[in-house]
Amino acid sequence: MKSLNIGVIGTGRIGKIHAANLATRVNGANIVAVTDVLPESAKALAEQLGIKKVYGDYRALIADPEIDAVFVCSSTDTHSVIAYEAVMAGKHVFCEKPIDFDLDRIKKVIHAVNEKGVKFQVGFNRRFDRNFKHVRDTVQAGIIGDPHIVMVTSRDPAPPPVSYVKVSGGIFLDMMIHDFDMVRYLSGSEVTEVFTNGVVLVDPAIGEAGDVDTAIVTLKFANGAIGVINNSRKAVYGYDQRVEVFGSKGCMTADNETPNLTTLYTESGVMREKPLYFFLERYNDAFIAEEQSFVVSVLQDKPTLVNATDGLKPVLIAMAAKKSLETGVPVKL
Amino acid sequence: MKSLNIGVIGTGRIGKIHAANLATRVNGANIVAVTDVLPESAKALAEQLGIKKVYGDYRALIADPEIDAVFVCSSTDTHSVIAYEAVMAGKHVFCEKPIDFDLDRIKKVIHAVNEKGVKFQVGFNRRFDRNFKHVRDTVQAGIIGDPHIVMVTSRDPAPPPVSYVKVSGGIFLDMMIHDFDMVRYLSGSEVTEVFTNGVVLVDPAIGEAGDVDTAIVTLKFANGAIGVINNSRKAVYGYDQRVEVFGSKGCMTADNETPNLTTLYTESGVMREKPLYFFLERYNDAFIAEEQSFVVSVLQDKPTLVNATDGLKPVLIAMAAKKSLETGVPVKL
Amino acid sequence: MKSLNIGVIGTGRIGKIHAANLATRVNGANIVAVTDVLPESAKALAEQLGIKKVYGDYRALIADPEIDAVFVCSSTDTHSVIAYEAVMAGKHVFCEKPIDFDLDRIKKVIHAVNEKGVKFQVGFNRRFDRNFKHVRDTVQAGIIGDPHIVMVTSRDPAPPPVSYVKVSGGIFLDMMIHDFDMVRYLSGSEVTEVFTNGVVLVDPAIGEAGDVDTAIVTLKFANGAIGVINNSRKAVYGYDQRVEVFGSKGCMTADNETPNLTTLYTESGVMREKPLYFFLERYNDAFIAEEQSFVVSVLQDKPTLVNATDGLKPVLIAMAAKKSLETGVPVKL
Amino acid sequence: MKSLNIGVIGTGRIGKIHAANLATRVNGANIVAVTDVLPESAKALAEQLGIKKVYGDYRALIADPEIDAVFVCSSTDTHSVIAYEAVMAGKHVFCEKPIDFDLDRIKKVIHAVNEKGVKFQVGFNRRFDRNFKHVRDTVQAGIIGDPHIVMVTSRDPAPPPVSYVKVSGGIFLDMMIHDFDMVRYLSGSEVTEVFTNGVVLVDPAIGEAGDVDTAIVTLKFANGAIGVINNSRKAVYGYDQRVEVFGSKGCMTADNETPNLTTLYTESGVMREKPLYFFLERYNDAFIAEEQSFVVSVLQDKPTLVNATDGLKPVLIAMAAKKSLETGVPVKL
Repeated sequence: MKSLNIGVIGTGRIGKIHAANLATRVNGANIVAVTDVLPESAKALAEQLGIKKVYGDYRALIADPEIDAVFVCSSTDTHSVIAYEAVMAGKHVFCEKPIDFDLDRIKKVIHAVNEKGVKFQVGFNRRFDRNFKHVRDTVQAGIIGDPHIVMVTSRDPAPPPVSYVKVSGGIFLDMMIHDFDMVRYLSGSEVTEVFTNGVVLVDPAIGEAGDVDTAIVTLKFANGAIGVINNSRKAVYGYDQRVEVFGSKGCMTADNETPNLTTLYTESGVMREKPLYFFLERYNDAFIAEEQSFVVSVLQDKPTLVNATDGLKPVLIAMAAKKSLETGVPVKL
Repeated sequence: MKSLNIGVIGTGRIGKIHAANLATRVNGANIVAVTDVLPESAKALAEQLGIKKVYGDYRALIADPEIDAVFVCSSTDTHSVIAYEAVMAGKHVFCEKPIDFDLDRIKKVIHAVNEKGVKFQVGFNRRFDRNFKHVRDTVQAGIIGDPHIVMVTSRDPAPPPVSYVKVSGGIFLDMMIHDFDMVRYLSGSEVTEVFTNGVVLVDPAIGEAGDVDTAIVTLKFANGAIGVINNSRKAVYGYDQRVEVFGSKGCMTADNETPNLTTLYTESGVMREKPLYFFLERYNDAFIAEEQSFVVSVLQDKPTLVNATDGLKPVLIAMAAKKSLETGVPVKL
Repeated sequence: MKSLNIGVIGTGRIGKIHAANLATRVNGANIVAVTDVLPESAKALAEQLGIKKVYGDYRALIADPEIDAVFVCSSTDTHSVIAYEAVMAGKHVFCEKPIDFDLDRIKKVIHAVNEKGVKFQVGFNRRFDRNFKHVRDTVQAGIIGDPHIVMVTSRDPAPPPVSYVKVSGGIFLDMMIHDFDMVRYLSGSEVTEVFTNGVVLVDPAIGEAGDVDTAIVTLKFANGAIGVINNSRKAVYGYDQRVEVFGSKGCMTADNETPNLTTLYTESGVMREKPLYFFLERYNDAFIAEEQSFVVSVLQDKPTLVNATDGLKPVLIAMAAKKSLETGVPVKL
Repeated sequence: MKSLNIGVIGTGRIGKIHAANLATRVNGANIVAVTDVLPESAKALAEQLGIKKVYGDYRALIADPEIDAVFVCSSTDTHSVIAYEAVMAGKHVFCEKPIDFDLDRIKKVIHAVNEKGVKFQVGFNRRFDRNFKHVRDTVQAGIIGDPHIVMVTSRDPAPPPVSYVKVSGGIFLDMMIHDFDMVRYLSGSEVTEVFTNGVVLVDPAIGEAGDVDTAIVTLKFANGAIGVINNSRKAVYGYDQRVEVFGSKGCMTADNETPNLTTLYTESGVMREKPLYFFLERYNDAFIAEEQSFVVSVLQDKPTLVNATDGLKPVLIAMAAKKSLETGVPVKL
């Protein structure tokens, strides 16, 4: 396999994960440059991973002719601008989710991707989780028949700082957006209507910031199926990530991943391990798999498994869910 | 323990179950009379179980001074009338669900019960299932903290005949009514709002009869919690009956009961048993437990665990769910 | 079904269980008489269960022409004598295990049974456990191919009093004897050799009484399979009763029964219920099933599922296991 | 962390695994040279992983002053010779198991290690499996009290070629040797006696080659515990690798790893995934962990977690097990 020369834009938490995986775990990936708004951060990462070029500005990185593909891992509000520029410069782009909260700016990126014919993948890493992927593959293979009910349980171990909630777009855009992508992925169909039950039960400060911390969203799909997602910002037992698809010929569920598969029997009871703590632990392998998938898509000129439109749709659903919460009635898409 | 003299009205399927259990499995129960609109049915059952009196008319049974308590197991449309008359005659009453679909007739029964001071129990047998009871007890004990999300999965192995659907009141009144009782039981709180997603995916004839066969209902509770119930008329793998309560300090789930606890490992995979086929298998012990509980409540003069008001509330919720389906918007209670 | 007139000899713990089940849970069973060396005990039970005759002596009960079958639930040292006399009187006999520790006395019973042509069943109740029976049936059906390895884990929640250990025959004759029957049942083959590892780890007083409290016995079977049983007198988490049969086409395991099937997720971990505490809880349904099976065998003139020879074999294996412990070498049967 | 310069001797299956992991997954590892009896194999691997030196002879590699540590991955019969020479040359050594089948040659290595004061680790990778390590850690922490019974189930998915069985030393030296290490690891104690039940049930050719393919070995430990290992050369459902430690305060079990954690419910039953197919899949992470552990031990001058004596002991136990099979009586160590 020839290799893909990659530039990483943004070396915060998620940028560091992608860079480290690309450097050591992804076949065919070759990081040649990094950049960050904090030059020291980019420099440190480059040193650690043996990356030869450090750019002071993302535009310089994009302009580098040695670079084939760009990972956009900058702050959320800059995703669409950087992605657009990278696409227009002819680079293949892996863009962290969400592309943007502004629909026009997302569409601008989509149009650019179509025009330039580059590969574009959005960072919905959960599609690459071994469990969810297996559920999807099983559904696609028709083993459980037509999907009737799609269910996603998605609960974080602890709420983010309220400061984050204020800028993140709220629970539907920063957290449930993953689940909106998941139900599209699992059902193989588009969402046509949502209704939201949202409440503040974890932290009043989240409510004061205009958001909810516990929510159930019911959905209708174009193929006739119905679905439901439940989110909580705080599951004291860890990151709870389960799905279930019920169909005409059966049902498939996916359980949580745990640190190990032991069981302890004592006078106190029979204990198994709690779910892996949070997304870094749970989706570690899924990150590597999505990166690998992107690299393969580019090198073999195949469609990416999460394209730019897949980046748009969950934002639309999230906005509808938010509107349903505000209006108290179901919202059609 | 002294014993309770019982008369059983109605010897159809559920009447036979109650009578057989009362005759052989319930301490303190003493069946002294039965009656049915089909005299032969009553006679046959009396012979089988050694019951001494067979009445040709329920009124005669109610008038029998030897009888302390009556099990109302007649056809649904006669529940409230017979229950009312039995209560007014001073009998303690175990009444199969639903008491009625007419709210005024239910309220008439409730008033009679209050006036006469007799014991009254409604046949929501699932409250006595060992799993659901343990979840409820754990929630009540505060072990999972304040309930935030209450979830019920309830799927039948096969749809009833369409003729039944036409007279049963439909999925919300004949099937999900059990789940409406369950969420009240698990949450320890009253439902304040429902929203319904209902579709016809199992059998078009059900749709032609004006009902749906697959439904998700989301709920709000007075204590701030939110919840969701999903129903299907047809789960090919058997009777799927699970609940989950998620709270501020933890989460509890209850799995399905199975014929045994073996696991088979072959080249084809790792197999466990399917859920018990239907309610007669799954809730066999729950029937006995509810009957025993009723007998103890009467003999020890304690409140029953499912009183007449518990019979009213799920009907109200079911009607609201039906209305939500018809109007497409959430309905407050 | 016509009914079987039964006399119960011995109204201690196990006699009470059998009598109560026969009186209320077993179709076709009709207890007509009881007797016990403590007349008050027999009288009390008769009153509770509505049994009409109480004999002061087991011989009188055996002589009662109204009685078709006898349950021998007296103290262990009297089993074979009473069983023999009952058989010779032409009664069908259900005999608690072990028939005897003296091989000649067991054989005398077997000869009597053959001579008189009556039904005889030994109380190896575990064969009627829903899990173990399903494993056996699966093995018999050839689904896991030829059995290669048979494994039994059998651990009590707490050791018996040392006074009991002194007269019981020790761990191999009072506890592992059930497991010796189980491996015969599961493998469908006879044991040909045993080797014992036995140690005192639970209570030194058991060692002082000449017994061990923790033991592993490996076995060879006539059909070529090999097996292993492990016993402990004290599992702090409850009664641990599991089996596994591994064969040429697969493997089947049977898990423990628990009070319910809930799972609790908290900060402390993920907890399920401990195994049911002890044999009265775990094998409650198995007792009913063995009693029912006996009644059916007699009424329908079919062979019992645990015959007199099945009572002899595990005693032989237990004695060999004991001898292996004493000699430190394997013992052939 | 500074890095460790490593030379890999032997580029067959296991050598390739170690080299690839060291090159990409192990912090602080730096492969500088490889060698193999097939020079092309070494060259190809060097090219693939970017290793700069390829030696035609292991002695040349050992003589390279740039190299700090050597991985001995050559054929089994050369382990002890190469390991000895590497140790005498002052290199730290990671040696694949077994060190040798000749006790004197193993002891010669041990003495050399002691004399030279280098680090020496034997490739018992299962100690680094996340499940078994957690069981060991839990036992060591005293959470299940004193160990009473140690159980290991270890079954391969398919038998090796008979040609391999003829030179491997047989099931006890090529397969159960891992389990002998495991019981020492889990119990924290030395084996003092073994007794073997071994039979040929999988393939007569294995028997003709003088080996067995199905075996149960019972063990005594110096700390008073007892144990049992069962092996089969052929489990049709995959690689079955489970352990259980039962103690005075509880019990811990470790289940099999599977490709994912989904459950499929259909009319046919409830299915979960089979165990991961074989050791490359199951112990992939364990290989990385053992390599990482070795590198850390050397760089931080700490004892390795599987030292040269740990390489000797399982060979002694395996030989005793073999002797027990031949003699039919237990063998003391």
